[in-house]
This record gives sequence, C-alpha cells and structure tokens, in this order.
Amino acid sequence: MFCLCQPTASTWVTIAAKNLDAVLADHAHCEMKAATTALSLALRAHEDLDAVLTLTRLAEEELDHFRRVVEFLGRRGLALGQSPVDSYAAELRKATSHLPGALPNPIVDRLLVGALIEARSCERFKLLLDNWPESAERELFEFYRELFECEARHCVQYRELAIRFASSSPERIDARLRQLAEAEGAIVARLGDALPTATVHG
Amino acid sequence: MFCLCQPTASTWVTIAAKNLDAVLADHAHCEMKAATTALSLALRAHEDLDAVLTLTRLAEEELDHFRRVVEFLGRRGLALGQSPVDSYAAELRKATSHLPGALPNPIVDRLLVGALIEARSCERFKLLLDNWPESAERELFEFYRELFECEARHCVQYRELAIRFASSSPERIDARLRQLAEAEGAIVARLGDALPTATVHG
Repeated sequence: MFCLCQPTASTWVTIAAKNLDAVLADHAHCEMKAATTALSLALRAHEDLDAVLTLTRLAEEELDHFRRVVEFLGRRGLALGQSPVDSYAAELRKATSHLPGALPNPIVDRLLVGALIEARSCERFKLLLDNWPESAERELFEFYRELFECEARHCVQYRELAIRFASSSPERIDARLRQLAEAEGAIVARLGDALPTATVHG
Repeated sequence: MFCLCQPTASTWVTIAAKNLDAVLADHAHCEMKAATTALSLALRAHEDLDAVLTLTRLAEEELDHFRRVVEFLGRRGLALGQSPVDSYAAELRKATSHLPGALPNPIVDRLLVGALIEARSCERFKLLLDNWPESAERELFEFYRELFECEARHCVQYRELAIRFASSSPERIDARLRQLAEAEGAIVARLGDALPTATVHG
C-alpha cells in the first residue's frame, strides 16, 4: 500500500471487524490528532502560504471526519473517551528523530511521517472494507470507503509537500520515505505482536 | 458589547484602520488559536458528545476563517509570520486561574473565557466596520461583517456550553462571567495603554 514496507498482520482485521465499536472510538482520536498535526505543520510552514492553505484544508477534512465519527458513536450509544496513549505515533516520532540521513529542513521528515500515517490508515480501512462483516451497518461501510480515498489523497499531498520543502529531487525524498517506512514497519510489527488491538494504527 | 465590561480604547481603531495589513496577520493567528482552543475543549468535553460536536463545528468555522484570512494575506503579498506572543490570552488565563469563586468543573471558566475572547473580537470587528477606510477593499469589509456575526454567535455558544457544564443557573454563570469580564477589561486597558497596536485582542 503506497509507501508502506510492512503489511498489517492478518490477525488485525479479524479483531477489528469483530470490534467495530472499539475501532470507531480509536478512529475518532486518530482523526483529531491528524487535524491538530496538520495545523501545527501549517504554522511551521508559515513562509509558504500555498502550503499553509493545503495543510489547513487537509486539517478541515480530518475535522469533518472526526465530527462524523463522533456522530456514529452517538448513534450507537458509545463513548468517545479520553484521548488514548498513542504508542505508535510516539515511537514513530522517536525512531525518525534518531534516523541518520535527514534532509536539512526538519519539516520534511514530519511531512513524510504524515504520509506514512495516512498510508497506514488507508491500508487498514481497505482491510476492513475487504472483510466487512455482513451484519455491520452499510452506512459505516460507505463512510470508510470515502475515508479510504481521502486518506490516500492526503498521503500523496504530504509527499508532495515534503518534496516542495526539501527543494530536493523526488528520488531523494522517496529514498528517505523508504527509510522512514522501514522504521514504521518495524514499529507496527512490534506493537501488533505485543498487543493486537482494534486500533487504526499501531 | 455582550458580556464585556471595558470598551476598547478609541485610539485602537484609529491605529487598526490605518494598518489593516497588520490586523490581518494578527487576525490569522487569532483564528488558528481559536480553532485549536475549541478542539482542546472538545476533547475535555468528551463525556458529552453534543458538546463535542458543537465545539468541533465551532473549530471548523474558525479554521475556515483562518484559511480565508491567509488567502487575503496571499492576495496582498503579505506574510503570515510566526505565531506572535499572545500576552492577552496568557494574562487572561493567569488572571482567571487566580480568581476566587470558580465553579467546581474547571471547563466552565475556560468556556467563559472563550465567550469573552469571542466578544472582544466581535467588538473590535464592529469598531473596524464602523470606521472602515474609504480606500480599503470592499471584499475585506464584507468578510469582517460576516465574521462579526459569526463571533457573536460563538460568544453565545460558549456561554450556553458553560451553563450546560456547570449544571448551574444561568444567573450564577452570568455572575461568574461578569467577574471574569472585569479581569479581562483590566487586562485590555493595561495592554492598550502600554502599547496600542493593530491586534484583534490585547
């Protein structure tokens, strides 16, 4: 799937498809974090107004998703709950900050990490769609299909923004992306082995 | 203006109307902060999904404003710049945290501070609209007129949310709002005397 090196373990979708309620609550927080991360990147990118606008539109889409996931939670009588500890994102940030070979502008790695997180969401939504339980709500299926397409577009946008800020060749950026994707794959494999849960990442 | 105790000094609008470019750059950051504050409150309010949805919609509106202010900046060839130090918000948070008489749920004061900040934006947009320079862009005037109405609605929404979370009478909440408004008024007067600038707050 796009830039990912390591597929999600097959056990994940079995657990997730049986626990769509848990996926939804976790997913809501993922959308909120995606929105606030995009906004923090928009402020960092303040010298390039077109990039600011792209990242703000991306954040607006993530917030629209967040709100709609919360509406699904409400209709199902479920709680949003406090923001869970995000080991995946924390480990990913840590791993990438220690990886040699970063480009001079630190925003590049953050944008590439954004691309990877969007790719991972996308991969898992596709797994869910391909293993959708017959008894599960059709409206939720359609929602995840829409999100699958949207996250795929966000992944592409993050990569394009990384190229823009690196003032470097797409080949150089893709090499860095592969390097980061290997680190991401190792984290996903480790977290998945340790505690397979119905989360969108990790 | 709504819940404010202290009007903005008359010198403010004279300076602001002559420096619409400076107002715009400051204003962009105010909208971004308003959006992220609403999102942080939405997560705090996680036990009440209707409140989460109201605050998320409010943040979406603030982000729409942010993006449109950035578009105005772009058309005028202006920079967004780094997020400025927000003495107004910092002092307001500090002052309210030391004010006796808070309601048991700490989100109440944060929501009331939100109402005050929206009221202050609203008051200043009205001052600008009433003193709009003849030579200034009409499209920007129309934008501020729209924002004036929107911020007024946000002020009302924050007060209503405060009542909801306080499980208290509107009279009790309005008494607390007056108390906070006095602290806010003192800060605005002090900051305005010290260094009158073309900012949306402070």
